Amino acid sequence: MPSLRAETYAHGAAAKVLHGYFRSAASWRVRIALGLKGLPVEHVFHHLRKGEQKAPDYLALNPQGLVPTLTLCDGTALTQSLAIIEWLDETCPEPALLPRDHVMKAKVRAFALVLAADTHPIQNLGVLERLRALGQDEASVQKWAHDTNEAGLAACEALIANVPGPFCFGATPTLADICLAPQLGNARRFGVDVSRFPRLGAAELACKALAAFQAAEPMNQPDAE
Amino acid sequence: MPSLRAETYAHGAAAKVLHGYFRSAASWRVRIALGLKGLPVEHVFHHLRKGEQKAPDYLALNPQGLVPTLTLCDGTALTQSLAIIEWLDETCPEPALLPRDHVMKAKVRAFALVLAADTHPIQNLGVLERLRALGQDEASVQKWAHDTNEAGLAACEALIANVPGPFCFGATPTLADICLAPQLGNARRFGVDVSRFPRLGAAELACKALAAFQAAEPMNQPDAE
Repeated sequence: MPSLRAETYAHGAAAKVLHGYFRSAASWRVRIALGLKGLPVEHVFHHLRKGEQKAPDYLALNPQGLVPTLTLCDGTALTQSLAIIEWLDETCPEPALLPRDHVMKAKVRAFALVLAADTHPIQNLGVLERLRALGQDEASVQKWAHDTNEAGLAACEALIANVPGPFCFGATPTLADICLAPQLGNARRFGVDVSRFPRLGAAELACKALAAFQAAEPMNQPDAE
Repeated sequence: MPSLRAETYAHGAAAKVLHGYFRSAASWRVRIALGLKGLPVEHVFHHLRKGEQKAPDYLALNPQGLVPTLTLCDGTALTQSLAIIEWLDETCPEPALLPRDHVMKAKVRAFALVLAADTHPIQNLGVLERLRALGQDEASVQKWAHDTNEAGLAACEALIANVPGPFCFGATPTLADICLAPQLGNARRFGVDVSRFPRLGAAELACKALAAFQAAEPMNQPDAE
C-alpha cells in the first residue's frame, strides 16, 4: 500500500490507521469515504463478537468501545463515523461528499442521520444483546432488527422520492449513499424486503458500480468470516 | 415576537416555524441553537404521547413522524436536529457553534453524536414503547433508559476529561453543549446519578447561565405539562 503524503491534506495531519470490523456498518461507511477520496490507510480489525473493542488500549482511543476510530499521523484519534467523514471531506475536499448548497447539504445530512442515528444504533450488536439478556427470544430479536431497518429505510425512500438520481442526491455519491449502502446490507441480513424501496435500490446500484463501494464491502475485508 | 429579516441569513431562506415538543431532547437542541443565534421562529407543538406527529400533514414535512422539523420561509422542510443546527451555523455563522479547527470540529461532532446517535435514540419514547410491547415490565424499561443514558454520558465525560472548560470544548458553547444539556435532563428523569460526571456537570452549569439555554428548557415551553 502506498504511503500517504502529508500534502494530500489541506489542513493538519494525515489519516493513518482505521480501527474497524468487517461487518460494522459504521466502519464500512468510513471505508467507503476513504476509498472515494483515494486515501489509503492501515486497517486494524477488532473482533466485536469477541469483545476486542473493549480492550484497555482501544478504550484509550475510543471511550465508547465502538468502531470505527481513525487515528492520524500525529496520534489524534477521531471517533464517530459521521464526524470522521465530515473531517475527511473538509481536509481532502475532492471529490466532495456533501453538496455546496446549504439546504441540499442539510438534506443529505438529515438522510444520513435517519440511518446513522435513528436506525443503525437501535439494531446494532449491543442493543440486540441487551434484548437477549432481557429474555427476548431470537425471533423477537430478529423482528426488532427487521422492523428498525424497515422503518428507517421507508423514511429514506420518502425523503428522496422526488430527488433526481442516480445516487441519493444527484449525479455523484454523497454522505447519504455512504450511509445507505451499509444499511441496506444490514437490512437484508435481517430479512427486510428491500425491493419495497426502489429509489434506494437505484442509488445502491449506482454505488455498486464504483470501486470504492466494492472494496469497502464486508466480504472484501481481511477479517471477514 | 419580531419578524425575521431575510438579510440575517447569509444564504437562502430564513427559518420560519419549528415543529417540536416540549420534552423532546432533539427539539430542545434546536431551540437552544436558535436562541444562541438570536433567531426567533414560530413554534408549533405536536403532542408525541397523543401521536400528533403521525398526522398526514406532518408526515408530509417529516416522513419519520419525528420532531423537530424546521420549515423555512420558502416552504423547505429541514429535519434531524443535528442537520438543522449545522444549517443554522452555516447560514447564520455568528456566534459559531463549531470550532474552526478541523480536528476540534470533528471532536465536537463526535461528542454530539455519542449523545444524538448512540444514546438518545435508544432511550426515546418509541423504543421504550417497543420494549413495553414486548412484555418488558416498567422497572426493566426504566433500567434500559437509565443504563443507556449512563453509558453515553460516561463516554462523553471521558472524551472531554482533558479539554479546558468551562463549556465542553472551551470558552463558548458548541454543538456538544447543545446536545449535552437536554441529555442530562433525560438522564435525571431516568434516575442517573449525574454527579458521577463532574466535567459534564461543570459544562452544564456554564450553559445554565445563558438565556438561550434557559429559554429552551422544557418547562419554559407553552406546551409543557
